[in-house]
Amino acid sequence: MLLLIPGPVQTQPQTRAAMAQDIAPWDDGFRPTYARIRERVRVVAGGIEGEHVTLPLQGCGHFMVEAALRTFVAPGGRVLVPANGTYAKRIARLGREAGRDMVLLDLPDTRGARPEEVAAALAADPTISHVALVYSETGSGIVNDPAAIGAVVRAAGKRMILDAVSALGALPLDLAAQPELDVAVFTSGKCFEGLPGIGFAVARVDRVLASAGQAGSWAFDLADVYAHALRSGWGSFRFTPPVQALAAFDVALDLHAAEGGQAGRLARYRANAMQLYDGLAGLGIQPYLSRAEQGPIIVTVRQPGDGAFNLGEFVEALKARGVLISNFFTTEAPTIRIGAIGAIGQADIAFALEAIGATLDAMGVTRRAAA
Amino acid sequence: MLLLIPGPVQTQPQTRAAMAQDIAPWDDGFRPTYARIRERVRVVAGGIEGEHVTLPLQGCGHFMVEAALRTFVAPGGRVLVPANGTYAKRIARLGREAGRDMVLLDLPDTRGARPEEVAAALAADPTISHVALVYSETGSGIVNDPAAIGAVVRAAGKRMILDAVSALGALPLDLAAQPELDVAVFTSGKCFEGLPGIGFAVARVDRVLASAGQAGSWAFDLADVYAHALRSGWGSFRFTPPVQALAAFDVALDLHAAEGGQAGRLARYRANAMQLYDGLAGLGIQPYLSRAEQGPIIVTVRQPGDGAFNLGEFVEALKARGVLISNFFTTEAPTIRIGAIGAIGQADIAFALEAIGATLDAMGVTRRAAA
Repeated sequence: MLLLIPGPVQTQPQTRAAMAQDIAPWDDGFRPTYARIRERVRVVAGGIEGEHVTLPLQGCGHFMVEAALRTFVAPGGRVLVPANGTYAKRIARLGREAGRDMVLLDLPDTRGARPEEVAAALAADPTISHVALVYSETGSGIVNDPAAIGAVVRAAGKRMILDAVSALGALPLDLAAQPELDVAVFTSGKCFEGLPGIGFAVARVDRVLASAGQAGSWAFDLADVYAHALRSGWGSFRFTPPVQALAAFDVALDLHAAEGGQAGRLARYRANAMQLYDGLAGLGIQPYLSRAEQGPIIVTVRQPGDGAFNLGEFVEALKARGVLISNFFTTEAPTIRIGAIGAIGQADIAFALEAIGATLDAMGVTRRAAA
Repeated sequence: MLLLIPGPVQTQPQTRAAMAQDIAPWDDGFRPTYARIRERVRVVAGGIEGEHVTLPLQGCGHFMVEAALRTFVAPGGRVLVPANGTYAKRIARLGREAGRDMVLLDLPDTRGARPEEVAAALAADPTISHVALVYSETGSGIVNDPAAIGAVVRAAGKRMILDAVSALGALPLDLAAQPELDVAVFTSGKCFEGLPGIGFAVARVDRVLASAGQAGSWAFDLADVYAHALRSGWGSFRFTPPVQALAAFDVALDLHAAEGGQAGRLARYRANAMQLYDGLAGLGIQPYLSRAEQGPIIVTVRQPGDGAFNLGEFVEALKARGVLISNFFTTEAPTIRIGAIGAIGQADIAFALEAIGATLDAMGVTRRAAA
């Protein structure tokens, strides 16, 4: 089965093989692996040794986002969220339920947020302390530009939190050049092509230290993750980690480096996404995004208007041809969502396009004439 | 390497083999596995169909405990914690940082809490709404009796939260007979002999419904886990799960059932623990607990008083002989902590005892004469 979902993604055999072992997480034997992971993650995120630190946390992307909001935003603090997709709205919910004051900047879900829009929103409300930005919207495929948005956040003297869950590993990040970034968070199962179970924050040490004691949650307090790691003398975790997912992530990082790191990975994903974008258009399926807004992670297309089309039936029929895509959508209009990420390449995309065309034909779905 | 740590435990090969696959968690193909896990977990916990529900959550045991406290105790609510070990104190910290008022009932860490002690504490403070109890203290090896403690909680008209992390799967639980129990929580990597990464709450449906909206955390709101599962029509999870840990847990549940379920597993663990307890005494090592208080999960012994003994060196030297034990202790006095749980039996314990004796001899550690 070819997985073309937004994550957990298809992995390399040697990555998932690393899952099938018993490991004692606190044993000395695992420490070098854990240290190597933290160091390599910091480097991929563009963090500076001694100024930035990698803080792993058990769980999933939503947990990382809640932990970041709790740790770096004081209770009652006000956060601006450029809201051009589902994951931005989820940031707002995570913050609101944690007692932070979340202000949505409503935007269409078909394009990236513009720096001037964020600048205007910050100018209009000086009580905002932070901007929380989604780098890659997993629902639609659009990508926001953290460097451009970060520049106006910095100019306004505000701080930023970056949800890089579907981004880091493939999309570039240079924490060293963005001192306004308190933290970027991501997970093991997306663009690094690891298995799910562990999340990572890469954070400014000065901000972590300044933020101690305000999380209102022991489990989600990244300042305590840091303090505990320091106290242990070797960067230890506080609670039992999903240690197999860590072992697999170490292998995934080897493969990431062997592919040329972030730039190499981005080149493959971009080629996948564009092959999908053009190929689907060639099948007469209308894209959800303009070519300029189409990111390299997820390709979203409009569901054919033909009454013969039904998403659930389409996904099942496509699966019978060996291709698995997402069976739900989160965009404003009904869409089909296809992942361009994971251990997949040109031949896989060609195979998927052929299967999609054959499935639509078998369902009797009429499309526009090919572009 | 023979793992004799308190968890993650040594697993069966077929359990960990299930980790090495890519799985699309939201795909229809995974739903029967996920449904089967939830159903079997409810049954092992003694829950009644329709009255109790299994609520999985990403992460580790501490996350489960914080989620249980947030979900079932209103903000500012007062919780009594019989404090006879490290994990009880951790419950108190998790609750306190989440804004709940945690009252410690201080007890020695060498015996179970007595029902009359809990009854007296409840009588002395009528503002307490809940008792939060640790079933098996992973630090010392003592076991509290949730049925006996629960009876006095019930008689006082209060509610109970059970941390069954190191217990469920081996120690008995009958939720049907304990209506005062809002919830019992545990994780995949302990007595069920799965791999770490996922936790489970088994909760009363009426209490879940009555508790909606008070968690103060979207991620840790078990009432929202339940509401989302209902809305999906098939019990879906809200966020990406560690799906490989779930697949492995399904295999672990097969093996658990094949061993005779909870009773079969308990018999093996109890035999392991008693063989360890008596064998270590035979090596002249003093137990930390009386025989009556020694539980079947963890065996804790006093560190030899001889200056030639050093825990770190002992653990490393023992590892060189193929046996891995915990490299830290959390009891009031210095101890050595050895797990009796996991896919291990009589021959493994005999091997471990021989290795421990040989290691102490090689280190030149003098002990008392054998008992």
